[in-house]
Amino acid sequence: MLLAKSLQEIKPSYIREILSVANSPDIISLAGGLPDEATFPLTLMQKSLANLANMPSLFQYGNTAGYGPLLEYFRSCYQLPSSHDGIVCTGSQQGLDLIARAFINPNDKVVMEAPSYLGAIQVFGLAQANIESVAQQADGSDLKALEACFAKKDVVLFYAVPDFHNPTGVCWSLAVRQQVGRLCQQYDVTLIEDAPYRELRFKGEALPLASSFCPNHSLVLRSFSKIATPGIRLGLVTGRSDWIAPLNKVKQAADLHSSMPMQAVLLDLLQHDEFAHHLERLRHLYRARCEGLINSITQKLPSYCRVQAVEGGMFVWLLLPTCDVDALAKSALEHGVAVVPSSVFYQDSEAVIPALRLNFTNATIEALDDAIDRLAMVIKSHCAI
Amino acid sequence: MLLAKSLQEIKPSYIREILSVANSPDIISLAGGLPDEATFPLTLMQKSLANLANMPSLFQYGNTAGYGPLLEYFRSCYQLPSSHDGIVCTGSQQGLDLIARAFINPNDKVVMEAPSYLGAIQVFGLAQANIESVAQQADGSDLKALEACFAKKDVVLFYAVPDFHNPTGVCWSLAVRQQVGRLCQQYDVTLIEDAPYRELRFKGEALPLASSFCPNHSLVLRSFSKIATPGIRLGLVTGRSDWIAPLNKVKQAADLHSSMPMQAVLLDLLQHDEFAHHLERLRHLYRARCEGLINSITQKLPSYCRVQAVEGGMFVWLLLPTCDVDALAKSALEHGVAVVPSSVFYQDSEAVIPALRLNFTNATIEALDDAIDRLAMVIKSHCAI
Repeated sequence: MLLAKSLQEIKPSYIREILSVANSPDIISLAGGLPDEATFPLTLMQKSLANLANMPSLFQYGNTAGYGPLLEYFRSCYQLPSSHDGIVCTGSQQGLDLIARAFINPNDKVVMEAPSYLGAIQVFGLAQANIESVAQQADGSDLKALEACFAKKDVVLFYAVPDFHNPTGVCWSLAVRQQVGRLCQQYDVTLIEDAPYRELRFKGEALPLASSFCPNHSLVLRSFSKIATPGIRLGLVTGRSDWIAPLNKVKQAADLHSSMPMQAVLLDLLQHDEFAHHLERLRHLYRARCEGLINSITQKLPSYCRVQAVEGGMFVWLLLPTCDVDALAKSALEHGVAVVPSSVFYQDSEAVIPALRLNFTNATIEALDDAIDRLAMVIKSHCAI
Repeated sequence: MLLAKSLQEIKPSYIREILSVANSPDIISLAGGLPDEATFPLTLMQKSLANLANMPSLFQYGNTAGYGPLLEYFRSCYQLPSSHDGIVCTGSQQGLDLIARAFINPNDKVVMEAPSYLGAIQVFGLAQANIESVAQQADGSDLKALEACFAKKDVVLFYAVPDFHNPTGVCWSLAVRQQVGRLCQQYDVTLIEDAPYRELRFKGEALPLASSFCPNHSLVLRSFSKIATPGIRLGLVTGRSDWIAPLNKVKQAADLHSSMPMQAVLLDLLQHDEFAHHLERLRHLYRARCEGLINSITQKLPSYCRVQAVEGGMFVWLLLPTCDVDALAKSALEHGVAVVPSSVFYQDSEAVIPALRLNFTNATIEALDDAIDRLAMVIKSHCAI
């Protein structure tokens, strides 16, 4: 069989490929977007996991939208109005894929920030969307460029990660959130707000969801991979009921429903008395690692490397002078440190700004410091200024 | 947002809709394709489930193709040659969806048996395939019609359920399997062999997979919903490595990977000393229920209702004289018995043969007998001959 046309231009995920290489014990990996296994709240999940064997109904076919009690919990926890609904997905990645399949025709225009989450580039690529990019500034999307895009009147949706962006770590200011909400309403564009890192704020003040400024012009994607565990593959989409219903229809064909036992375990975890403490410990640990990494960078990398402080999430974005970032990342791997070059996060290769994405959640402060030592050598030889 | 064109013609699954109605205690449901919860091998899974809390690596992001040890087990269990691979899916439903997304362009020709599995009609409908139907006979597909279809030279794939077909229960003879294998090779058509009911044979002799007669012109879908449990959502696709690789690429975008803890539990179950006994008990129970249902039908329904004996699976197909099957099924529901009318299993409404799909796995022999009592009344009033 020949590949479908929609698949012919899709590259396999660089990150998924590098993760298998980066497993070697000689390599310090700052490449993945992995939470630290040692932080997984398995103690809080132990009782629920053991109790599953007494709950046969969880092992039967279930509702496509998700496990009823979990959906009820989400409705109350996220204060969904009666005109809104939720659908549990096999990871928020599936939520995004369902949205693209339900609402995007080939050549439909989709706006993304540049750089952007690789998994989103893949999804909209598979949907054969016409992707338009808007640059990111320190406080969020370039609003002038965004409005110019929207004003062309043929944009279906705007995909964004306002909290601790992947890969840059940028967090939208309140003003940007309000303006994006206003623009989405004014130009009738749907904001797809992807919020996997929202609960990982370890500094500064929490800001409202951007979608809260355009509740009927938005869908929100949430992930439980960062605050619970990734392996259970559970995410959530919420928004207008008339937009959630089509996602249900696609999900019937896509996988009928997501794992019911895992949904029941997640509900118990989210409701566990100790869950808030677990999140506190997680934020505390990630803050220390992030600060450690930024200290190492400041001390050990040439001053032409620039890094912006972040207030949460899992990544910092290391800006470099003009260089071949792919060759640099390859060389770094040979020197025992895995990083992701900026090139993989751009739809349009001409827009690539030389940078590296560095993950700080899955290595100790000591390992992060060693990684920067290794990286320093490589950067100096690749970016001779 | 407007619905994508591909979704506009897709009806929500009648079966998923009726399942929510058929939950009422007053209704005996023969509508679902549900295994009996009471048979779930939770005792055999108990230790694995409880032990998950000690295995943090299972809760991390994992490989898209599946949990390594489970893939190894499948390779050995299904004797995959070195040129073939497997990919674990979120139910075999996802496997089918990945195949359609990887290999079908809009208007590509796909051949299916008529009637056919509703979930497959949905998947190929979403892929905007041009579906051509071939009638089913007592021993499998109508080979003359199939060859005539293939001879037109533009068929990409042939989707079939050779073992205990859903909805008809038909099991392909050895000769049909051999001939289909030969035709697929001769006309370069890929056989998508969906085998969810294969292990549920309770009579007669096991036959080789149809795909074994065209191993490089086929992909095999397996489900663990019927022999393990549906709620864990795990299935498998196997076939040529160069056809499994594109499925991996689509799955990266679709959900990254399927639940790792559930994959580990499934592996333990499949390797459990008592698993073979579990399957024996399941087959014994389903055989008794199937025989009970056919006895009730023979004794209580008018002689113009015809039912064919089955040797396994979950369904019998009750052929009726010309009547409005949708009205009949609706009336049956009002009289306390849920069944699925044949109309939902046909892509082409003009080809519909009046019949009902009756599931025998999720009700006791007594309940099945009561259901036929109720159905007798309804049939007599709808099929006045």
